[in-house]
Amino acid sequence: MPEIRFLPSGIVVEAAAGTSLLEAARASGLELDSPCGGKGTCGKCIVRIVSGDADSESLGTLSRTVVAEGYVLACATRILGTPLVVEIPERSGWKGGQFTDAEEDLALVSRELLPTRWEFEPLAMKWLLDVSEPKRDEGLSDLDRLTRSFRKDWGKGEVFYPLSVIRKVADALRAEAGRVTVSLIRDGDTFRIIDVEPGDRTSRHWGLAIDIGTTTIAVQLVFLPLARPVGTRNDYNAQVSCGLDVISRINYARTPARLEELRGLALGTINALIGQVCGAHGVKPEEVANAVVAGNPTMTHLVLGLKPEYLRLDPYTPTASALPYLTAREVGIGINPESWVYFCPSVGSYVGGDITAGILCTSLVDPAAKEAEGTLSLFIDIGTNGEIVIGNHDFLMTCACSAGPAFEGGGIDCGMRAAVGAIERVRVDPETGSPAVWTVGNEKPRGICGSGMICLLSDLYLTGWMDGQGRLARDRPSPAIEVEGRRARYLLAPAEESATGKPLYITETDIDNIIRAKAAIYSACSMILGKLGLGFGDLGHLYIAGGFGRFLDIGQAIVLGLLPDLPRDRFTYLGNSSLTGAYMVLVSRDFKERMEEAADRMTYIDLGAESEYMDHYTASLFIPHTDLGRFPTVAAAKRKAR
Amino acid sequence: MPEIRFLPSGIVVEAAAGTSLLEAARASGLELDSPCGGKGTCGKCIVRIVSGDADSESLGTLSRTVVAEGYVLACATRILGTPLVVEIPERSGWKGGQFTDAEEDLALVSRELLPTRWEFEPLAMKWLLDVSEPKRDEGLSDLDRLTRSFRKDWGKGEVFYPLSVIRKVADALRAEAGRVTVSLIRDGDTFRIIDVEPGDRTSRHWGLAIDIGTTTIAVQLVFLPLARPVGTRNDYNAQVSCGLDVISRINYARTPARLEELRGLALGTINALIGQVCGAHGVKPEEVANAVVAGNPTMTHLVLGLKPEYLRLDPYTPTASALPYLTAREVGIGINPESWVYFCPSVGSYVGGDITAGILCTSLVDPAAKEAEGTLSLFIDIGTNGEIVIGNHDFLMTCACSAGPAFEGGGIDCGMRAAVGAIERVRVDPETGSPAVWTVGNEKPRGICGSGMICLLSDLYLTGWMDGQGRLARDRPSPAIEVEGRRARYLLAPAEESATGKPLYITETDIDNIIRAKAAIYSACSMILGKLGLGFGDLGHLYIAGGFGRFLDIGQAIVLGLLPDLPRDRFTYLGNSSLTGAYMVLVSRDFKERMEEAADRMTYIDLGAESEYMDHYTASLFIPHTDLGRFPTVAAAKRKAR
Repeated sequence: MPEIRFLPSGIVVEAAAGTSLLEAARASGLELDSPCGGKGTCGKCIVRIVSGDADSESLGTLSRTVVAEGYVLACATRILGTPLVVEIPERSGWKGGQFTDAEEDLALVSRELLPTRWEFEPLAMKWLLDVSEPKRDEGLSDLDRLTRSFRKDWGKGEVFYPLSVIRKVADALRAEAGRVTVSLIRDGDTFRIIDVEPGDRTSRHWGLAIDIGTTTIAVQLVFLPLARPVGTRNDYNAQVSCGLDVISRINYARTPARLEELRGLALGTINALIGQVCGAHGVKPEEVANAVVAGNPTMTHLVLGLKPEYLRLDPYTPTASALPYLTAREVGIGINPESWVYFCPSVGSYVGGDITAGILCTSLVDPAAKEAEGTLSLFIDIGTNGEIVIGNHDFLMTCACSAGPAFEGGGIDCGMRAAVGAIERVRVDPETGSPAVWTVGNEKPRGICGSGMICLLSDLYLTGWMDGQGRLARDRPSPAIEVEGRRARYLLAPAEESATGKPLYITETDIDNIIRAKAAIYSACSMILGKLGLGFGDLGHLYIAGGFGRFLDIGQAIVLGLLPDLPRDRFTYLGNSSLTGAYMVLVSRDFKERMEEAADRMTYIDLGAESEYMDHYTASLFIPHTDLGRFPTVAAAKRKAR
Repeated sequence: MPEIRFLPSGIVVEAAAGTSLLEAARASGLELDSPCGGKGTCGKCIVRIVSGDADSESLGTLSRTVVAEGYVLACATRILGTPLVVEIPERSGWKGGQFTDAEEDLALVSRELLPTRWEFEPLAMKWLLDVSEPKRDEGLSDLDRLTRSFRKDWGKGEVFYPLSVIRKVADALRAEAGRVTVSLIRDGDTFRIIDVEPGDRTSRHWGLAIDIGTTTIAVQLVFLPLARPVGTRNDYNAQVSCGLDVISRINYARTPARLEELRGLALGTINALIGQVCGAHGVKPEEVANAVVAGNPTMTHLVLGLKPEYLRLDPYTPTASALPYLTAREVGIGINPESWVYFCPSVGSYVGGDITAGILCTSLVDPAAKEAEGTLSLFIDIGTNGEIVIGNHDFLMTCACSAGPAFEGGGIDCGMRAAVGAIERVRVDPETGSPAVWTVGNEKPRGICGSGMICLLSDLYLTGWMDGQGRLARDRPSPAIEVEGRRARYLLAPAEESATGKPLYITETDIDNIIRAKAAIYSACSMILGKLGLGFGDLGHLYIAGGFGRFLDIGQAIVLGLLPDLPRDRFTYLGNSSLTGAYMVLVSRDFKERMEEAADRMTYIDLGAESEYMDHYTASLFIPHTDLGRFPTVAAAKRKAR
């Protein structure tokens, strides 16, 4: 059978003539986006034939320029009897991995909230030792002398060595006259030596912050001596093939084999990203001495192979909220197998380590913050699940709601992640209703990401081309609005302007999905405030986190009714706060303790148990809200627009 | 190819017609004793054909009774084209495993030195918990509730769970309404939960004491709730195929692959013995929660895969003397993979955990012993290495010497372990010089074990049939003494009386080996006493340990000059004190601490560095000694015998 080589991964698969490229890619473990199910209509499985011949049936769905460059649809291209080299473009998102500037998200967090030089103390350390030579009458073993030398610097305390490290000690001590570098994890008065290397290796010292999202996984490589992030890679969580949200994953995991499958899928994504980011920076994965993982409880259960079923069944009990010391070997993460994989603690069945890590990016847990004097803050993490934390230095209350993957591009016909080609901003012409679009990377549009949809819906509403229920205007004609029977759709880009050669539409069903997502978030905030006898006006600060785009226009999110109508200066956008929080824990023992203490004092509210939640939710299924009095500046803007 | 099934292991191997049974057995990993190298002359590879036909060439070397029962020599029997069932008799020793009464060695140890009921506190515990049901508002995970419930009984302290145990928690808690049994190891204030099972499993609780000798490995299964040994199995250490003593093993292990081979061989023997002893008592190996291992430093290095080379090179530094917490998974011992494998600590390059464990069987480390008032005691462990500890409650001094495997049957033509058929006692007729022999199991003799050789040489010397240099009498004829040129040999059993159908001889070379072995031990004792300005007369008590037989006649060992000429009531024979000491540590935390404290205060003397040692040794190469004044009762007995 001919060999098919896929770039940039270099993965090779043998496939029989007649197999489609989509099937071949999947057989080799590569995931290509194919929401139309291989019908050749969505254009998302675009690939480029680098060399070799293939039988491409339906090039018509791609624009001519694209075809000229060798692009084909993988689903509509069949293998002949000859070898092929096929490039999967980065823009496809899947497995290509997407590079984001490593320090970008850190820049979103207020400087005084980040660990300072004085607070840098990574969980993992490298330490240079000059161990004395063995002497005949001393009667000390190699391990004895190493431990003595270590204790000279670090005092008493139990020192543990795994067998794999003990096996390296004798030769390491003799290679450079007793000069060795030990890697270790300090845990109170206990020191776990996780590596011993000859000579001075203190500058080869890395850690990983890992954010395991339901939809997206991000891995950040950090140079620990300077607490500096050197690179970040993110990709879809390969589990998405088994369900889009946590409930469908839990349902999928109902047999041990399927649980193991989900575990393997998440680890596959994580380890591939580790390989990419380490490879790009000349780091061997086994040089990574520590990983800090933040994920929601379902993701944490699945990646650890813990049966998630009881999370879904009353009384919704997780197997573990805080996890003990686990090694990379046990967890299956491809770094130094003896290193510690620390999981940020969960608070409730649906509020996890992504949130306890995330609030490190807020003043809620900053002992130095001015807000200590009782000012109330709200933290919202908008992902496939939406999580909310409200409180101050006296109390912290948290809850989660299911927003669905709409803001990450899921469940929307032309939705996508904020990768190259994603429409991230839209301007609707008030006169004609026609859109002007801006994409990530300024390339031809391939789809629309979360920030683009917020932008679009806000503009359509203010310009009157869509009403508060999400119905597109039918009373006056627009070249962008196509009505078919009872449903209408909005043309974002005609076929000739899109990267896929197909027109990009937002349907009223898509709009409904967005409205439901924003209603879930807003009503959860509203309800939790109500429980405290408070309103949005009582909030001194709002922190918004999430992966729905590279930036978030707070004003437009208010118009949509996703965020409350408050002065803009009360809002801070944090980006991926889960990853940033994991980074802070990785580099600072103080921040780890700060987070654990915060997790302990967080009160978890189960929205499912609150009867008012449905009332709040229903009232929010309107743009911006059924009670327009809650959104005075939106009402004013609307009046002005008329 | 026909299938050959070996009993009692049940191992099946396919072998071509014409292959010898010895080759087939070895191909299947079974070791048969074959010192003659398959020439059909030693008779040690005796096996029994249970069913099937084979071509046996040289049945002549076996007695007729044996042949009638279906016994053949494996080396001289060739496979025909048909299947065979072949039994390897237990008496062959190799792999058959030999059962010894589990409590036999314990009975040799003074009752007041064994842990009492009040001191029973195994390193591993099983604990029954009734864990509360999960409640919605409590916000406690399964692990939280389990840990709380545990702490109610055990107070604060860190509780660790390996991931493999966390995976079992959710279902275990729900199987019997929260009633679970946890297995745990307490290590100071740290608790390591190594298993969680539904319901009450506290009565399924076992530990293992393991003695890894250079020649023999012994495994004892202990029922921990009652601290009762339930069975012991021992077998040759499979490493013997790579060298008979520690130095040849160290030389063999000079490449990583060969080190790994030696590690695998020792683990193979250990795990096979575990399978046998557990199987015989209806215990699943994974129900074993703890193992305590005692072995000399070389054996410890090899079984852990630690490069032993530096033990042999000046300054003879071991990689580790005391080992940190190691799991069965890391070590490769086939019990609960999370359980602790504790290694008794070493003291010097050649004094190991077998000795630190062994001295628990003596009053040297018994805080309650009367000898505390300064009385000096000597502990001698006679094996392939001989180790000596001398001291009292104020000091402990130790050294090791290389005795060679003679007392365990190695390097002696018809030598063997104290298994069925071994001559363990001999009486020489003063008039004729002819022997009367007694064997283990009262079966026909197959060889002679350590205690038999001590008996024989002592009697030959006292009766004048052998002189002090180990020369057999040539001046008067005996039917038992055959002179050939310059060398003579002693007939222990003629062909028609031996189990192998071959005569059993002790040659003058064999006698030399025994004399060298006893000289090494005696001179080491003598020298270490000399260093202290003391003589044997200053010793209040002597403890003799070793695997050279089921019993040791102290008087005869004195005649041979192996032991000093002191009143018999000062001697105690301990049998396998290494195994008994490991048992004590397994069942009593107090005894573990007692041993560790003793190891810390032991001073190691390197005999190789002592110039007088060779003088002492040379003076001891005589029966009983060149200085007969040291052995007044032997001199008197000799005079009387004349």
